[in-house]
Amino acid sequence: MFVQRFKSEGISHISYFIGQGAEAAVVDPSRDIDAYLDLAQRTERSIRTVLETHRNEDYVSGSQELAAATGAKVYHGGQVPFRFGNEIKDGQELNVGNLRIKAVHTPGHTDESFSYALYDPTSGDHPVMLFCGDALFVGEVGRTDFYGKEHRERLANALYHSLHERIVPLGDSTIICPAHGSGSICGTSIGEREDSTIGMERLTNHALRMSKEEFIASKLAEDMEIAPLMRRMEKSNLEGPKVLGHLPTPKPLSAKEMKHAIAKGCYLLDARQPYSFAGAHIPGAINLWLESIPIYAGFIIPPDRQIVTVVDTPGHLDRLVRYLVRLGYDEVVGYLRVGMDLWAKQGMEIATMRGITAKELNGRHKAGEDLVLIDVRDARERHSGTIPGSKQIHLGQLASSMDEIPKKKPLVTFCGGGYRGSTAASILVRHGYSDVYNLQGGFAAWSAGGFPVER
Amino acid sequence: MFVQRFKSEGISHISYFIGQGAEAAVVDPSRDIDAYLDLAQRTERSIRTVLETHRNEDYVSGSQELAAATGAKVYHGGQVPFRFGNEIKDGQELNVGNLRIKAVHTPGHTDESFSYALYDPTSGDHPVMLFCGDALFVGEVGRTDFYGKEHRERLANALYHSLHERIVPLGDSTIICPAHGSGSICGTSIGEREDSTIGMERLTNHALRMSKEEFIASKLAEDMEIAPLMRRMEKSNLEGPKVLGHLPTPKPLSAKEMKHAIAKGCYLLDARQPYSFAGAHIPGAINLWLESIPIYAGFIIPPDRQIVTVVDTPGHLDRLVRYLVRLGYDEVVGYLRVGMDLWAKQGMEIATMRGITAKELNGRHKAGEDLVLIDVRDARERHSGTIPGSKQIHLGQLASSMDEIPKKKPLVTFCGGGYRGSTAASILVRHGYSDVYNLQGGFAAWSAGGFPVER
Amino acid sequence: MFVQRFKSEGISHISYFIGQGAEAAVVDPSRDIDAYLDLAQRTERSIRTVLETHRNEDYVSGSQELAAATGAKVYHGGQVPFRFGNEIKDGQELNVGNLRIKAVHTPGHTDESFSYALYDPTSGDHPVMLFCGDALFVGEVGRTDFYGKEHRERLANALYHSLHERIVPLGDSTIICPAHGSGSICGTSIGEREDSTIGMERLTNHALRMSKEEFIASKLAEDMEIAPLMRRMEKSNLEGPKVLGHLPTPKPLSAKEMKHAIAKGCYLLDARQPYSFAGAHIPGAINLWLESIPIYAGFIIPPDRQIVTVVDTPGHLDRLVRYLVRLGYDEVVGYLRVGMDLWAKQGMEIATMRGITAKELNGRHKAGEDLVLIDVRDARERHSGTIPGSKQIHLGQLASSMDEIPKKKPLVTFCGGGYRGSTAASILVRHGYSDVYNLQGGFAAWSAGGFPVER
Amino acid sequence: MFVQRFKSEGISHISYFIGQGAEAAVVDPSRDIDAYLDLAQRTERSIRTVLETHRNEDYVSGSQELAAATGAKVYHGGQVPFRFGNEIKDGQELNVGNLRIKAVHTPGHTDESFSYALYDPTSGDHPVMLFCGDALFVGEVGRTDFYGKEHRERLANALYHSLHERIVPLGDSTIICPAHGSGSICGTSIGEREDSTIGMERLTNHALRMSKEEFIASKLAEDMEIAPLMRRMEKSNLEGPKVLGHLPTPKPLSAKEMKHAIAKGCYLLDARQPYSFAGAHIPGAINLWLESIPIYAGFIIPPDRQIVTVVDTPGHLDRLVRYLVRLGYDEVVGYLRVGMDLWAKQGMEIATMRGITAKELNGRHKAGEDLVLIDVRDARERHSGTIPGSKQIHLGQLASSMDEIPKKKPLVTFCGGGYRGSTAASILVRHGYSDVYNLQGGFAAWSAGGFPVER
Repeated sequence: MFVQRFKSEGISHISYFIGQGAEAAVVDPSRDIDAYLDLAQRTERSIRTVLETHRNEDYVSGSQELAAATGAKVYHGGQVPFRFGNEIKDGQELNVGNLRIKAVHTPGHTDESFSYALYDPTSGDHPVMLFCGDALFVGEVGRTDFYGKEHRERLANALYHSLHERIVPLGDSTIICPAHGSGSICGTSIGEREDSTIGMERLTNHALRMSKEEFIASKLAEDMEIAPLMRRMEKSNLEGPKVLGHLPTPKPLSAKEMKHAIAKGCYLLDARQPYSFAGAHIPGAINLWLESIPIYAGFIIPPDRQIVTVVDTPGHLDRLVRYLVRLGYDEVVGYLRVGMDLWAKQGMEIATMRGITAKELNGRHKAGEDLVLIDVRDARERHSGTIPGSKQIHLGQLASSMDEIPKKKPLVTFCGGGYRGSTAASILVRHGYSDVYNLQGGFAAWSAGGFPVER
Repeated sequence: MFVQRFKSEGISHISYFIGQGAEAAVVDPSRDIDAYLDLAQRTERSIRTVLETHRNEDYVSGSQELAAATGAKVYHGGQVPFRFGNEIKDGQELNVGNLRIKAVHTPGHTDESFSYALYDPTSGDHPVMLFCGDALFVGEVGRTDFYGKEHRERLANALYHSLHERIVPLGDSTIICPAHGSGSICGTSIGEREDSTIGMERLTNHALRMSKEEFIASKLAEDMEIAPLMRRMEKSNLEGPKVLGHLPTPKPLSAKEMKHAIAKGCYLLDARQPYSFAGAHIPGAINLWLESIPIYAGFIIPPDRQIVTVVDTPGHLDRLVRYLVRLGYDEVVGYLRVGMDLWAKQGMEIATMRGITAKELNGRHKAGEDLVLIDVRDARERHSGTIPGSKQIHLGQLASSMDEIPKKKPLVTFCGGGYRGSTAASILVRHGYSDVYNLQGGFAAWSAGGFPVER
Repeated sequence: MFVQRFKSEGISHISYFIGQGAEAAVVDPSRDIDAYLDLAQRTERSIRTVLETHRNEDYVSGSQELAAATGAKVYHGGQVPFRFGNEIKDGQELNVGNLRIKAVHTPGHTDESFSYALYDPTSGDHPVMLFCGDALFVGEVGRTDFYGKEHRERLANALYHSLHERIVPLGDSTIICPAHGSGSICGTSIGEREDSTIGMERLTNHALRMSKEEFIASKLAEDMEIAPLMRRMEKSNLEGPKVLGHLPTPKPLSAKEMKHAIAKGCYLLDARQPYSFAGAHIPGAINLWLESIPIYAGFIIPPDRQIVTVVDTPGHLDRLVRYLVRLGYDEVVGYLRVGMDLWAKQGMEIATMRGITAKELNGRHKAGEDLVLIDVRDARERHSGTIPGSKQIHLGQLASSMDEIPKKKPLVTFCGGGYRGSTAASILVRHGYSDVYNLQGGFAAWSAGGFPVER
Repeated sequence: MFVQRFKSEGISHISYFIGQGAEAAVVDPSRDIDAYLDLAQRTERSIRTVLETHRNEDYVSGSQELAAATGAKVYHGGQVPFRFGNEIKDGQELNVGNLRIKAVHTPGHTDESFSYALYDPTSGDHPVMLFCGDALFVGEVGRTDFYGKEHRERLANALYHSLHERIVPLGDSTIICPAHGSGSICGTSIGEREDSTIGMERLTNHALRMSKEEFIASKLAEDMEIAPLMRRMEKSNLEGPKVLGHLPTPKPLSAKEMKHAIAKGCYLLDARQPYSFAGAHIPGAINLWLESIPIYAGFIIPPDRQIVTVVDTPGHLDRLVRYLVRLGYDEVVGYLRVGMDLWAKQGMEIATMRGITAKELNGRHKAGEDLVLIDVRDARERHSGTIPGSKQIHLGQLASSMDEIPKKKPLVTFCGGGYRGSTAASILVRHGYSDVYNLQGGFAAWSAGGFPVER
């Protein structure tokens, strides 16, 4: 029995490769399938089966891609009308070599959510592992708000039932393999630890220790964002995403070619660190730091645009392409060859972005300056404290909230550590604001500096 | 919380790297410590702590090496008089970043055996993982025979107590991290699966489901080999193994230099596949297939000899050096440059080894030929069936059992799959026998071919 | 100016990547184009141009493949009717960034042979390098026998003219970049050294130091083999080889699946070292050592067959696929999972191949045994000495020379070092001979052993 | 014959590995010798010989290090009193396998400069390659100013003689292998191309086409910088540099530990891109972009200081350590764990550096602002044009030229492309200046923008 975890950074999506003998299965593959194929080749196995725990919302499924490359059969629940793959039924069993996989219907996050219990020849009736999708996470359970308000209570009920009647009875000793880890937007506060068991969750997971009433109340009270792109991904995952065959390969562009591409309407994404972006960037660029892309691109980058990009670290272009393809942005057409260095040297126009330190900000504040502070974090982050007088606009809503932002005053954006603040500042500049600052180190720096915090 | 498993192939020794924040600990490091150092560097952590579950018998501890390279503190039980490191007490706690590690004295395999329970900030009183050394394995428990017959009952008693009074009470939901996996000689039949929990073992591990009396009886009945080298390694691990600084780098030898090295008394180890060895080898070579070295070298290769070797695959020399260094064979001084190809072309003497297929063997047998069949597997393997009329001599005893082997008859060696059979055949030839065959595919081929099996 | 050499092992074909600024060109690409694409990506360049020095005979051109992947323009001489690409004219110039490439018509090896002279901005009228295809090699010049006897004199004349009137006048100081290195069948005796200049060749190359009459006489006297496959490759390279899109990925086969594939008519290629093959192989397999494939597959493996294979070293499968694809064998459909180990253990039928050492051979010879010795080397190798009484049949002709080989006598095959001898022995066994030996270490071992040599 | 080039980036030092059969030699090794050892291991060769072309000034020799690791013998000229290694004489011959290396005394750059001519068995009296150290480069010849003014004429004379009487007579067809490539400070304007021959240089190298008088005059007129560190390196290379055994491994430091290290007197080197540095850095840091270190560290970083650093790209720390060790900075003791991100979040003090675009600069200039422009390039760069009104202070002299820089005016630093400008700006800030700007894209951006240029 061989189980390997694959983690999609940022969205913290986890997929699993299960191998035994000459066979393998993959649970919830991401769309850049080369890692599964490589592992299959290295371990001399054929991928015969792809298991989907549910129709995902936060990434484009790689099931079609993997099926096209290997001939594997795709399985998912039949409670929503998938246009591809095969329906799996509650209790149905499949084999991977001498391993047995049993499908367990665990609705709640979605109606067609399935968990998969894995048994090996020595484990008897006790599953070794449970691939539990978005039903149960380490320290958290799945969201129940994707179907809209009118369905929340029903789904919360269903999830409670799935957790307590279907999962917990499998036994304390089963290792859990959820579809997401810490940082995912699919659970409010998934734990940082990656290893857990049903028993560990039963004992320590806040959501499993509530009464049914408490549980439902807490789920109804949840307030999380849904990126516009998620609706598209849901749809795509229902219909069967387009098969790419291979990852897109953006072309190296000269400064001139880059300028031309922007003029033609390409979306200009600067994926460098905020500090680098602050130092120099192409005017009009949106700064979305590479590691923020998996979570925030869906809020910021419009679908169906050709994308050109600026990166400054070997290997980042490859990761950027993967991150974007996982979200369904398939057209990354070019990147600036040799980076801002070339651009600057060729005399092209350069913009900078002003940073402000917590100390300076506090000083100017104290001096009575009328600064507008925009907190672009989400509501939960803000609950743990913010800068007095700041206004909250979630990063994803910023572009559509320009009315709320005064035109003539100095603006200071901030987030937790300075990354989203830079994105926000770049969006404001793009919308014509000029007196914009990003708080360096974000709220972390502010509070570490001992400046006043409002809760 | 970041935990990574490192597996020493062959001996199936498992060590663990535990990291959190800027700190790391390593449990039971092997002597080729580069992998731990690389991971520490990559994850920007400092290794501060080395935990030994016990004084190991089947590999030379890397604790001294790692401490020398990093300044880490080494901990182990004080029940035997270690000449290095620090004593840890039952119940004592250590930290790795925000993780808490608690020492649990679990004697039985040895007197100073300790397990280490790992807690993270969210796990409350329930350990997430238990690093349980040679107390508990997946599907098996530790050996209790290393101290000799007179101690077996006492140790079996102690182990029973450790398992049932100290480990099981930690709870079903704790993931176990034993010091060995499948294939190790430190447990009779460790399971192939790598993932398990205390609960899973409680429910399915044969040794945990016995009464105390049954357990002790079963431990007394155990009959496993102890490689001569193990005693040396125990001693070395008590005194603190020599710090190497870096892995030995054997020199590429010309055919002439190789001949000279052999003449000077170097031990000639041919680590190629038996098929290649059969096809052509340097006369007098002992064929110990690379992957057999971790388990069988300790029976076969005398200590303190300089070793020269023949390999034929890129990367194998590096692995051979690691395997040998883990066992305390530090002097791998040379290898045949460009392999047997060069040797053959230079007109050096070549030997071949005859293989025999199951079909041929059966034919000659049936035809009434007086072949001596030597089964070099261990007793347990033989219990599951053997070739009728064969004589069992464990591979490790072969060299000292020459009296039992008739001088004039054709000899056929066999093992499970053909590897140890080749080792045995090469030993026989080295001792002057000439009419020697290795059964190709070993007993597996014999039984797969449908030939008669004796149980 | 950036020039990188790529060497296709075995056929010793050399292709070149020329880069400057954002642009690149490739000279004579092989069909596994990933290396060029990787380098282009790493150096942030676009491949705009593919230059063919001539319609190659010993590998399938990768020009079409590379053009399909990059949009590059392909150029070659118009003296033969290529069905793809663009005609280049003598004296025509192309640019790669600030580099200048000038086409120089250098017929002789073929009518449409072109060399390409490379200038950089500082080199004035003196080409830095000359990509001279099969016109001039290090220590040798191109063959003139591919068009058949009636054309040899004309071509030798043309080549003499190209060398002396077109290449030598470019100047002593130009570095030469030929299409082949040592070991290629495109030149009788290309030097081992890889670096040379026109001047160095003018001074030391035997073929450049002859008078015209001597040169033509020597070319007419040349006697080299032409693999049957070469005619197919010439045709394919004229018409434009099929575009693959990516390299074939053979499937891991179980022993059963392998047996089935062979039964269905797949060609069974054992690409392991002769020693391993001798030790155990699947009955009926042809042993063509991995590194022999580029040169000898074209003589041995029939076109249009599906191929299954046995390899035993990580990485060898990938190389095997590349070697075969370069020759136009596109259907490598499967390989034996876990190698002969699995096959043997599953009780499948196993064959061995007998080796004989030079000493044994000499002994049996002296003892008067009537052994038939078959020297499978080519005529030139044989000129430097052979075993007395041996019969020469070039490896490529062996399969069609069965009439010449006595049915009842023991046969000993030999080559230079033991590799082709094993191929020959496997072919003989495949044709029903049973008393067959391969001379270990080949003629090298024989002569190094001091046994009698006939010249 | 196998020759591989190794390039030390930045200083553009080139070393060479020469292999044949089982032996190898290395010419002018750098101090991070792992690459030579790896190649020797991979090609199964033993490094027996180390050849030094001269006592180098721009890097610390790796000869001692390599000799210590391999037992190789080191050779260099006896004209200076080396305290290690062996003297080589003009005309002396050594072998590497079947290759012949002949020492040719070619003084001029230094008195003990030697070139090494490489012959293979087929090259007769014509060397295939010449390892010509700092005598002859592609498009340039060596400096003659290291011994001071009073020796320049004598050395120029000697170099002229070496070039015309010793090197050119070896023949046009010999490939040259100099010790430096483009960008080195050991030649005024070494060509970008890497491949050349004696003939190519004879025909196109400006220094070889002068009369003796012109040559000497031109050498006397040369005006190049000598980094203070070079004198130390010369001394060290004479005495035999300290053997390190392995590369230093800087520790990951927390923000607090970093602060402490700086307080204790460590030198704070920020090796990130100027844009990143501009965005945020630790107050007091000197910004020396990674790729500038090989050339400029010797001017900027005082010897014998412990160094702590900030990098932001995986792999850069390793390169930084190599670059510094090559220059004799052996104590790189720590680096900021997780980079500026961590620093900022922990509320530590942050500084930014202002950039200015060419357009802004021109605007402020035109508007009559009294800006002080400091051109930190060298004299030769400045000759090709500069910004009107700027003052030249070579980057290496800046720290000792504070008197020349007005205290109260806004300062703008610039270089060719923006990197050294940032170093200069960081030095000015370190010396207490506050109104400092770095011109983004440097003079390249200025001139590409079409702004006025003074020549």
